[in-house]
Amino acid sequence: MAIPVDTFFLGPDGEGTLQARIQQMIAEGILSGRLKKGERLPSSRSLAAHLGVSRMTVTLAYADLQASDYLSARDRSGYYISANAPEPPRFASRPAGEDRIDWSRALGRRFTGGATPDRPLNWADYPYPFLYGQTDPKLFDHANWRHCALRALGTRDFHAQATDYYDQDDPKLIEFITRHTLPRRGILAEPDEILVTMGAQNALWLTAQVLLTQRRTAVVEDPCYHGLRDILTQSRCHTAAVPVDARGLPPDLLPDHADVIFTTPSHQCPTNATMPMARRRALLASARDMDALIVEDDYEFEMAFLNAPSPSLKSLDRDGRVIYVGSFSKSIFPGLRLGYLVGPRPFIREARALRASVLRHPPGLMQRTAAYFLSLGHYDSLIRRMSRAYAERRRVMEAALAQHGLTVAGRGVHGGSSIWMRAPEDVDMGAVADALRGQGVLIEPGASFFHGAAPPRNYYRLAYSSIPPGRINAGIALIAAALQECG
Amino acid sequence: MAIPVDTFFLGPDGEGTLQARIQQMIAEGILSGRLKKGERLPSSRSLAAHLGVSRMTVTLAYADLQASDYLSARDRSGYYISANAPEPPRFASRPAGEDRIDWSRALGRRFTGGATPDRPLNWADYPYPFLYGQTDPKLFDHANWRHCALRALGTRDFHAQATDYYDQDDPKLIEFITRHTLPRRGILAEPDEILVTMGAQNALWLTAQVLLTQRRTAVVEDPCYHGLRDILTQSRCHTAAVPVDARGLPPDLLPDHADVIFTTPSHQCPTNATMPMARRRALLASARDMDALIVEDDYEFEMAFLNAPSPSLKSLDRDGRVIYVGSFSKSIFPGLRLGYLVGPRPFIREARALRASVLRHPPGLMQRTAAYFLSLGHYDSLIRRMSRAYAERRRVMEAALAQHGLTVAGRGVHGGSSIWMRAPEDVDMGAVADALRGQGVLIEPGASFFHGAAPPRNYYRLAYSSIPPGRINAGIALIAAALQECG
Repeated sequence: MAIPVDTFFLGPDGEGTLQARIQQMIAEGILSGRLKKGERLPSSRSLAAHLGVSRMTVTLAYADLQASDYLSARDRSGYYISANAPEPPRFASRPAGEDRIDWSRALGRRFTGGATPDRPLNWADYPYPFLYGQTDPKLFDHANWRHCALRALGTRDFHAQATDYYDQDDPKLIEFITRHTLPRRGILAEPDEILVTMGAQNALWLTAQVLLTQRRTAVVEDPCYHGLRDILTQSRCHTAAVPVDARGLPPDLLPDHADVIFTTPSHQCPTNATMPMARRRALLASARDMDALIVEDDYEFEMAFLNAPSPSLKSLDRDGRVIYVGSFSKSIFPGLRLGYLVGPRPFIREARALRASVLRHPPGLMQRTAAYFLSLGHYDSLIRRMSRAYAERRRVMEAALAQHGLTVAGRGVHGGSSIWMRAPEDVDMGAVADALRGQGVLIEPGASFFHGAAPPRNYYRLAYSSIPPGRINAGIALIAAALQECG
Repeated sequence: MAIPVDTFFLGPDGEGTLQARIQQMIAEGILSGRLKKGERLPSSRSLAAHLGVSRMTVTLAYADLQASDYLSARDRSGYYISANAPEPPRFASRPAGEDRIDWSRALGRRFTGGATPDRPLNWADYPYPFLYGQTDPKLFDHANWRHCALRALGTRDFHAQATDYYDQDDPKLIEFITRHTLPRRGILAEPDEILVTMGAQNALWLTAQVLLTQRRTAVVEDPCYHGLRDILTQSRCHTAAVPVDARGLPPDLLPDHADVIFTTPSHQCPTNATMPMARRRALLASARDMDALIVEDDYEFEMAFLNAPSPSLKSLDRDGRVIYVGSFSKSIFPGLRLGYLVGPRPFIREARALRASVLRHPPGLMQRTAAYFLSLGHYDSLIRRMSRAYAERRRVMEAALAQHGLTVAGRGVHGGSSIWMRAPEDVDMGAVADALRGQGVLIEPGASFFHGAAPPRNYYRLAYSSIPPGRINAGIALIAAALQECG
């Protein structure tokens, strides 16, 4: 590959002759790793024209670099980065003065330091990935997804892909959500009560910004999704953590006052508890009594392969106090980054304005491709296929857990994609997870889900969404052995 | 199309017999517009199984709805929404009690009310769209873009598309930006000094959150991009607006103290002024004196068809005080939502953590498709084609503006995609733009770019990125006529 001529720039405050500066520019490119061995340099004519110097200057610079073995010449075809050129250092040297800024002062706010655990990006290379929220490529419907994307990429749909929607969304996706997705959860909504988001994460974040301030109180479940806790910490609101039980969030443990209650009634995250109907009604009544809003994160409701899912909280809401969060990222794949918020107009209006300021809108191609995938029925088939596979894996998991004597702390009555586990009280699952990683086993330690400075460290989550059923038993055996060693 | 059975849900607090509740459910579906005329209902057997009621109950409900002409029956193929079914009201009735929430109290923060002007989503239907920032489908390289997307959609790249990158990005895109995009601007950066963003909008937003607080001061150019001003207003920092001249932001007009200076040296937004090298150095020196950071929004640097672009401010920076914002959304298309931030590690680390909390990462498919489009050279060809087309349109524009006697207030020396215009002082270009819209002409009134409560209303922006050259003269003639009428 030839190196494009316009990637070359003479440093503005360079010293020495023009020829020396050109040589230095090329040598620095090699030493910084930007120019790789075997790549062809621009012709002396074109580089000279680009830099506004004489051709002879470039020719002399090239010849000098050849003499010092940075470049090699091949007849007629020009100069190449030599195979003998010096290796770039593994850690490139920094331009001088980069640390003249006192960053401890220059940063107005910090966003690092959240509870989000360390997870390897190459999880698919591990033989036993009991990792939550990633997609199993073997279950995915590649052909139809590609087919839908191709249609969305067509000239006829160019506007949908290319246009700046400003604060709006693809009307086709909104229509499908309105007419087909939400009715399955018993929800009737108009298009202007729906906002497409960059996954459920973005929906929760937008909601927190619109509803919470430093003077307001949010209720979270304990344990709960660590990403939500980080969002609330950054919003600086007061947070009351309410311990969940086997039926999810208990309304009678709510504080006397709260402004917003975040809950996951379908599959409590991470315990998988499903809130029974009576408790849902009681929760709505409690919220009404304290005039609180409820944010219902209904992630993963599609994964209901054991029983039909219960109606959503929002479908029981007669006051307009429930804000509903849904996601396609779990069921299609997380790299999709598509979810949605459903709520009363005054709320959606503000969330929409904020989204426009933060990012405008989720990319048109993703919205249109998802709209086709949904409306052509491929989504439903995919969910059915995933449900069958998950049901089988769940059976294999349960059998393996029983066989190896591991303790289940929570499982979904409708399905879900993970099991919440408890080790003996003195075991630090963070350390166990680290040790298991070395053996090719990925599990999720549970401490980051808990509230407070001294969270229990003996919980963990085992997902079966990405691990092939044939590997489950061996993986569980390794986990059991690792726990044995700690005991 | 058959209506999927699981879109039906019996309201939980329904009254009356089961049969009546089923009828009501279907009738409400029709009246709300969710069920459309001609759509087939599920078989009575499947609906009964889904709802957990006897088949006879459903059969009786269907028969009753047929009698009242909500449904029509066709032999063997079941029940359909009747062509005579009542029309859904244009404004669906709201479920009772939706306004039990006092939203004026429930909203913690407001995000509506920004300066972003009203722009029609169907701009492509207007014959004279002098609209900024949208893409001309006639210039776009559909075939190669689709080819790259197809490659990114392939099974071999599934991980790149599907995975949850958490706070990371597609390494292929980062590598291309590092090795090819930034060197063209004279910038040497390591991968961990780069963050992919949802367009330049998202890059500016993230930057403001990390660097600004209520106690800090930001300098903005006056006029400047209205989206930036909205971002700063929401961040509640102090804002000092510095009037630009024909060479962009004048360093000697800077206030005595500022924490962050936002500037657009390549093409000042919206005046198109290009900052000369001497002023760039002076700006850097002023920033050093007051220990301020600089955010360089280098949008549209690719559109340099008249002259080679000047080196970026960041390439002149020896202190690490310049944060660089780039975008592919202008040059590929805005619906892409891909831009990037380049800055010192302590800054990028915080911006990365914030991005992960707000939205995780831009979708993998968009990142990988762009990476292929860039690395296969299609991007460079596209830029060359766009540059040729823009150069021609610019000539036609200049001629038409001269012919019709309109006043240019600012034009790019390197190129750009728009011309900044001034009408006589007493003309309100907001009103003129409204009137022109009725004649098929879209222009952008300039008031929203200005700082302060009483902005000048006689400026406007005319872009030539989307309008075919053959329509330019007629469009300018209409604008001239509209201005004549005001004069």
